[in-house]
Amino acid sequence: MRVGELSKRSGVPVATIKYYLREGLLPAGVLTSPNQAHYDDEHLRRLRLVRALVDVGGLSIASVRDVLVAVDTRDDSLHNKLGTVQEAITQPGSAELDPLAVKDVQEFFARQGATDCVDVTESHVTHMLATALSAARSVGHDDFRNLLDPYLEGLKIIARADLEYITRHGSPDDIIEGMVVGTLIGDAVLKAVRRLAHGQVSREVFGQRPPD
Amino acid sequence: MRVGELSKRSGVPVATIKYYLREGLLPAGVLTSPNQAHYDDEHLRRLRLVRALVDVGGLSIASVRDVLVAVDTRDDSLHNKLGTVQEAITQPGSAELDPLAVKDVQEFFARQGATDCVDVTESHVTHMLATALSAARSVGHDDFRNLLDPYLEGLKIIARADLEYITRHGSPDDIIEGMVVGTLIGDAVLKAVRRLAHGQVSREVFGQRPPD
Repeated sequence: MRVGELSKRSGVPVATIKYYLREGLLPAGVLTSPNQAHYDDEHLRRLRLVRALVDVGGLSIASVRDVLVAVDTRDDSLHNKLGTVQEAITQPGSAELDPLAVKDVQEFFARQGATDCVDVTESHVTHMLATALSAARSVGHDDFRNLLDPYLEGLKIIARADLEYITRHGSPDDIIEGMVVGTLIGDAVLKAVRRLAHGQVSREVFGQRPPD
Repeated sequence: MRVGELSKRSGVPVATIKYYLREGLLPAGVLTSPNQAHYDDEHLRRLRLVRALVDVGGLSIASVRDVLVAVDTRDDSLHNKLGTVQEAITQPGSAELDPLAVKDVQEFFARQGATDCVDVTESHVTHMLATALSAARSVGHDDFRNLLDPYLEGLKIIARADLEYITRHGSPDDIIEGMVVGTLIGDAVLKAVRRLAHGQVSREVFGQRPPD
């Protein structure tokens, strides 16, 4: 397809596609004449992935380039590639950490056998969790750590649905694009559905009681 | 206790306590002399709730006042009070909604029998969900709606743990304070633990496969 068709099918303006081409985020098309290049479905998939990283993930062009290098590394499992992308789309946060919250996270990870992301200085995910538990401790909710295990139990059900969702299509670019969208837009969906779940469970627990 | 002790036990500065007293967010203490008032555990609980609404929930003083009126309404169930507070701490969002996403949400709520929060113009929670599904649709993920049911299934496990957590203490103020902190800080904890769950499930699904 020509660049106009690529733009139409991806929803990305031609000027943006040309910018991505110049920045090396999209491989050049096959020249069919000095002024005309031909693009295929691989370009379309890559373009969708780049758009998800930029528009949904908010990544800089340089970060997108790093992610694409990881995605294109041949000798690596899809699991590792997904892990790399997940770290890239997770904001590290800059709040000060409560050492007790860090300890809570380390104990939780040790319990769960998640030995590859224990260090808060190395893993954005770990840092994000320690930041949230620090905030809870700062308002006197030291016991929040007790929620981590049931949270993980519920979230594994959700993660299985997510993985099923993103593997509908076979290509690695599509799977990774699905993970970016699923993780980031999924966070917002999850927040809203969580409030609905609270309402349903609160009705079960408090709905029949006389007013306090 | 005197105001100094109330400040120490709540972690809220004396000047802030005096400001809350002037704004009517905290009932006046019992005067023991012309310049000295006595506060009790009710004041401490109310102060913790106000702080959670202001510091964690980011509510304005006027919104806090509205929430406290709802909390103090005698003839209402705790379930309804929690619903009122949940709406108050949920940002409505201003993005344009995709009518198809609104329809997805309405069908989901109808399936789940959640008839009390179907209208996007009336419920912040509904609006939040429609906003997130609109964002998914805008990047070609119309099928995201299929994740709503498994999300709710996982989130009910989480909501039960949350409700158990916030009902450890008996007083309504403590329960509502726990819900504010649990909902808002819980969102951040959930985001982080979700990434861990993704990692664990991805390892199960992709970890053993040869690289693509």
